[in-house]
Amino acid sequence: MNAEKNNTILLDHGAGGKASHALFSEMILPLFSNEYLAMGDDGAVYSVPAGKMAFSTDSYVVDPIFFNGGNIGDLAVNGTVNDIAMCGAIPLYISVGLIIEEGLPINDFQEIITSMATAADRAGVKIVTGDTKVVPRGKADKIFINTSGVGMIPEGVNVSGSRALPGDKIILSGTMADHGIAILTAREGLTFDGDLKTDSAPLNHMVKTMLSSGCEVHVLRDPTRGGVGTTLNEIASQSGVGMTLFEKDLPIKKPVNGVCELLGFDPLYIANEGKLLAIVPEKQASKVLDLIKADTFGKNAAIIGEVTDQRPGKVFLETAIGGQRLVDMLTGEQLPRIC
Amino acid sequence: MNAEKNNTILLDHGAGGKASHALFSEMILPLFSNEYLAMGDDGAVYSVPAGKMAFSTDSYVVDPIFFNGGNIGDLAVNGTVNDIAMCGAIPLYISVGLIIEEGLPINDFQEIITSMATAADRAGVKIVTGDTKVVPRGKADKIFINTSGVGMIPEGVNVSGSRALPGDKIILSGTMADHGIAILTAREGLTFDGDLKTDSAPLNHMVKTMLSSGCEVHVLRDPTRGGVGTTLNEIASQSGVGMTLFEKDLPIKKPVNGVCELLGFDPLYIANEGKLLAIVPEKQASKVLDLIKADTFGKNAAIIGEVTDQRPGKVFLETAIGGQRLVDMLTGEQLPRIC
Repeated sequence: MNAEKNNTILLDHGAGGKASHALFSEMILPLFSNEYLAMGDDGAVYSVPAGKMAFSTDSYVVDPIFFNGGNIGDLAVNGTVNDIAMCGAIPLYISVGLIIEEGLPINDFQEIITSMATAADRAGVKIVTGDTKVVPRGKADKIFINTSGVGMIPEGVNVSGSRALPGDKIILSGTMADHGIAILTAREGLTFDGDLKTDSAPLNHMVKTMLSSGCEVHVLRDPTRGGVGTTLNEIASQSGVGMTLFEKDLPIKKPVNGVCELLGFDPLYIANEGKLLAIVPEKQASKVLDLIKADTFGKNAAIIGEVTDQRPGKVFLETAIGGQRLVDMLTGEQLPRIC
Repeated sequence: MNAEKNNTILLDHGAGGKASHALFSEMILPLFSNEYLAMGDDGAVYSVPAGKMAFSTDSYVVDPIFFNGGNIGDLAVNGTVNDIAMCGAIPLYISVGLIIEEGLPINDFQEIITSMATAADRAGVKIVTGDTKVVPRGKADKIFINTSGVGMIPEGVNVSGSRALPGDKIILSGTMADHGIAILTAREGLTFDGDLKTDSAPLNHMVKTMLSSGCEVHVLRDPTRGGVGTTLNEIASQSGVGMTLFEKDLPIKKPVNGVCELLGFDPLYIANEGKLLAIVPEKQASKVLDLIKADTFGKNAAIIGEVTDQRPGKVFLETAIGGQRLVDMLTGEQLPRIC
C-alpha cells in the first residue's frame, strides 16, 4: 500500500471484509469500548425493566465537519442524546451509522470518532451498535453520521409537545443561535471579535434533575433546525395554544447578535445544539429556572414567554419597543447543512 | 414555483421549516401512519415489558436505487428487520433517517417511501420516528437511508455468533448471491437470460417460527456484505471453531451461477439480502431445515456444512471434485455499494 492509501478511508473499509473488520476492531472498538459492542453481532442486546421507552434518530450532514467548539462527531452524539432527553427519558444506548466518502483522511476520521466517544462518556450513554459504509469520491461529502438511541422514561413522567397549557411559562435554557452562527462563520471563513462557537452539549443531566425534582414539566424540546421560532410554532400547533414571547428577555450573546444584525439573520430561526425549551406551569417556573441555571449548560437560562389561549397555533413576539409581530415557522432555508 | 421546483426535492425540504413539515405531514406520515409517529415529538415513546431487547442500525447507499425486485426503500426496512431478527428478537419499531440529494424527483421519493411502508407492513413493524436531511446537488448520490430498530427477545432465547459448537450443522435458507448479482446487472445495464432479481425479504417470521418451535438455535446471521463466506468466517472467529462447507450442497440459481462464472465472481462472497445462516445442533438440523423450507422465503434452504473443532477460525470448502480449499474472509471490494 502506498502512503496515500494508508492515510485515507478506502472503499474496502466499507466492503464488509478484512479492511472493514480492521477498521472496526483497531480504530472504532477500542474507542467505544463496551460489552455490547464487543459481542460483534448484528445488533446489541440489553435488558430493560418494564416501562416506557423513547427511541429517536437523526442524521448529521453538517458542513464543515470541523468548527469552533466541536465537530460532526460530538454533534451527532449530543443531538440524539438530547432528542431522547426531550421525550423525558434517560438516554442509555446509541447506535452509529457512518457514511464516509472515499478519501477522508484517517486522521480526520480518528478525530471525529474520538469526539463521539468523549461525548458519549460525558452524556453517560454507550455506543452499542453501528455500521460503516464507504461511497466513492464525489458521491458524499466527507462524512455523514446517523445516530439513533433509546432511553427509559421514569415512571410518572409525561412530556410531549402536545401538553402546553395556557398560563404555562416558556423557559429557554441559554443563549440563542450560537451553533448556527458558529457554522456560518466557519463555512464562510468570516472572522469576528468575540467567542462564536457551537453550544453543542448534552442536556440529559439537566433534564434528569428537572424531572426528578418533583416539578411538573409539560413540554421539553431542543430548538435545533429552524430555531426557537420554528420549534415554538410546532409546539403551539401540537398543543392548540398561542404563545407570546418577550424580545427583551431573549438571551443572546452580543457577538452572535452582532453577526445576525450584520448579515440580516433573525436569531429566532438559527439552530441551537445545546439548548432546550421547557414549558412548565407558572407556579413552578421559577423553581425550574433555578434548577436549569444550576446546570453547567444552563447558566444563561431565562423565562422568555408564556402560553396563552389566544390565537391558537400562533406565536407572537412583544418587541422591545412595545409592538407585536408574528413569529411564523421558518420559510425557506437560511443556512443549509447546519447539523 | 416553477415546474422543476415542484417535482423535485429542494434544500427547503430538509431545513426544518414549512417545507419540511409539509413533506412530513403530506407525504411521509400518511404512508407510515401510526400513533407513535403521529405524536410529532423528537422521538417515539412506547411501552415494553421487562426483558431482553435487541437494537440494530444500518445505512443503505445502494447504487442504483431501483433494481429488479426492489429499491433502496424496502431494502433498508428488510435489512434492519433482519438484523434484529438475527439477534433472536421480534422486531417492533423502526426509525428512518433520510439523506436526500437536492433534485431527487418527487416521484422517485414517493416510490421509495411507499416501498418502505409496504415492507414495514409485511414484516409487521412500525416506522415510529424519523429525520430528513437534504444536501446540495453533488454532495450525496440521490438518497441514502439509515434504518435503526428495536425488538424484544423472547424469554429463553440466546442466539449469538459466539455460540457455534463443533458438531453443529450449518443451514443456509436459500440460494446465494441473488442480491449482489441483481445490483451488478442493474448497474452495468447487463442483460442475461433468467430471473436475476434481489432476494430482499423480511426473515423475522421465519426466525419466530424457528425459535418458538422449541428447537435449539445457536447462531443466526444474515450473510449480506461479504456474503456467506465472510459471514461464516466471522462466526468461526467469534466462536473459536472451524467449519467445513460442501460445494455440492450450496444452493445457487443457474443464471446467477452463470453470471458469476462469466465475470469471475465467487458467489460465496456476493451479498444476500433475504437469506439467513442458522447454526443448530445436529440432532435438530433436519427439523429446523423443514421449518425454514415451509416459510415463503426458505423454499431452497439446505444444510451446507458443519462446525468442527479443527483449525479454529477457519472455513474450508470441500469442492465437488473432492478437494479442499480455504474460504477466507473477503479481501478488497468486489462490488461497491451493494446495500
